[in-house]
Amino acid sequence: MHPDHITINDVGPRDGLQNQPKLLSKDQRLSLISALVDAKVPEIEVGAFVSPKAVPAMAGTDELFADLAASLKNNSSLFSALIPNMKGFELAMSAKVPLMSLVVATSNTMNLKNIRMTTHDSVSVSKDVLKAAKKQGANVQAYVATAWACPFEGKISADSVFSITEQLLQAGASSIVIADTIGAANPLEVNQLMEAMASRFDLSQLSCHFHDTRAMGLANVYAAISAGVRRFDASIAGLGGCPFAPGASGNVATEDVVMMVQQMGFSTGIDMALLVKAADLAIELTGSASGGNAKPWIENYYLNESA
Amino acid sequence: MHPDHITINDVGPRDGLQNQPKLLSKDQRLSLISALVDAKVPEIEVGAFVSPKAVPAMAGTDELFADLAASLKNNSSLFSALIPNMKGFELAMSAKVPLMSLVVATSNTMNLKNIRMTTHDSVSVSKDVLKAAKKQGANVQAYVATAWACPFEGKISADSVFSITEQLLQAGASSIVIADTIGAANPLEVNQLMEAMASRFDLSQLSCHFHDTRAMGLANVYAAISAGVRRFDASIAGLGGCPFAPGASGNVATEDVVMMVQQMGFSTGIDMALLVKAADLAIELTGSASGGNAKPWIENYYLNESA
Repeated sequence: MHPDHITINDVGPRDGLQNQPKLLSKDQRLSLISALVDAKVPEIEVGAFVSPKAVPAMAGTDELFADLAASLKNNSSLFSALIPNMKGFELAMSAKVPLMSLVVATSNTMNLKNIRMTTHDSVSVSKDVLKAAKKQGANVQAYVATAWACPFEGKISADSVFSITEQLLQAGASSIVIADTIGAANPLEVNQLMEAMASRFDLSQLSCHFHDTRAMGLANVYAAISAGVRRFDASIAGLGGCPFAPGASGNVATEDVVMMVQQMGFSTGIDMALLVKAADLAIELTGSASGGNAKPWIENYYLNESA
Repeated sequence: MHPDHITINDVGPRDGLQNQPKLLSKDQRLSLISALVDAKVPEIEVGAFVSPKAVPAMAGTDELFADLAASLKNNSSLFSALIPNMKGFELAMSAKVPLMSLVVATSNTMNLKNIRMTTHDSVSVSKDVLKAAKKQGANVQAYVATAWACPFEGKISADSVFSITEQLLQAGASSIVIADTIGAANPLEVNQLMEAMASRFDLSQLSCHFHDTRAMGLANVYAAISAGVRRFDASIAGLGGCPFAPGASGNVATEDVVMMVQQMGFSTGIDMALLVKAADLAIELTGSASGGNAKPWIENYYLNESA
């Protein structure tokens, strides 16, 4: 393995905040995103175009994009937003969102419970959005959620992941994020699935998303890197959490991932000192995030040594 | 990779307690060891035959072995103790210690600071002990400490590790534990070194020891497993800690390692419910250990699901 470059997409302002008990104001969300931009995080998931009644934490995402365009003219971060369906796509188009994210779960039970559709219908809806996106020149990626395990159906077959990935790529998705939505994957199965994915698809179009629910977040990132993956979701300060495991950690923390891959010799372009400031802000704003497991060491040693 | 069996050596009662601020009584140490025996941990590092003035936490290790022999007649755990030199070996022989552990650090600076000897002299002393052990039929393994990085000399060359390992195996060490003493290794270099070791030595004689200082403990365990290693040190509740990183975690927690490898399909023979009880006891006795990162999930979900 020759360490080269790894791209980090911070999902804290969306996947993170959406799962925090405290609702942040639009200005607080903007300050967190600005802190991530300052730290030169290359990709940031800013919000979601979902019903504000169903997900109050993501209300006003359209205004947030307008504010970001006005206040952060010279930033180099790519901003994205979650879109659940065609209506979300249209709202995101109006808000001039540079990158949109669709989500398809692997299991019928999960899809039926979450969006009252079968997996087949969910893929169809996504294909329609991708078709519209192609026409209008929009950049849309897609998440394959619960890619290793579903809380209702258990282990997911790799064939389901291959099939959904193939359909979404053919329909025009710019990349596919293989997501361990509930933090149930172990590094052995992460490595096996991502090696199989790498033999079927273009690695430059693949990304991974892990939770630290069972403390295996970094091990899973490393297992995916071993298989050739070079783009990862992570969440500042470990913002997020999993409804299935209160008390356990949420998304794998951005500062932990960046530290590990930098130590392994990969470049990320991220400023660690400013990233830790963003983590402090996330902890302060939410009052519940605890920060990555490596944060004490980064603050006490890594930043002092490299200063 | 075909998951088979992984052997866990819990070093909490020695490496763990030695680095805790609170001194435990002999009875408290015995109760922790008994809890690990109850959980069917196959190997347990019980204490050290070192100067009680220099290391008061390990005073009375000889009595501890006598108590263990008297109180735990039918246990299946292999008890070990650290021996720094020939005097330690003789004390351990008198105490009928089934497995003894020597330690050689890779760097001259570390050896000079710790034991006022060069690496060459430290290897010589260890060879003398191994010679005596052979004559007297004792089982002695050896640690190669600071195998990836030394706090004084930085990165350590793989050749140093190969050379020390070769000399100690030839002198009769039953196995070699490659130790990331200061928690500075990353999974890429763990995988590289252990793959190189596996091509030179018998994997069944190799073991690894990791700290979670930079949150990479489990990633490093997985990286070593990928290289074929099947025996690991770990410390109950993450007891331990590193003098170079206060506030950061200590040894990788036994419950985290056992959970990860069991999820990967490996057998360990360990009873997870009783292991969590041992972790609770370690936390209660020391007042400073925090438990493994996966402990909340294990307690709230894993044990409930499998109950």
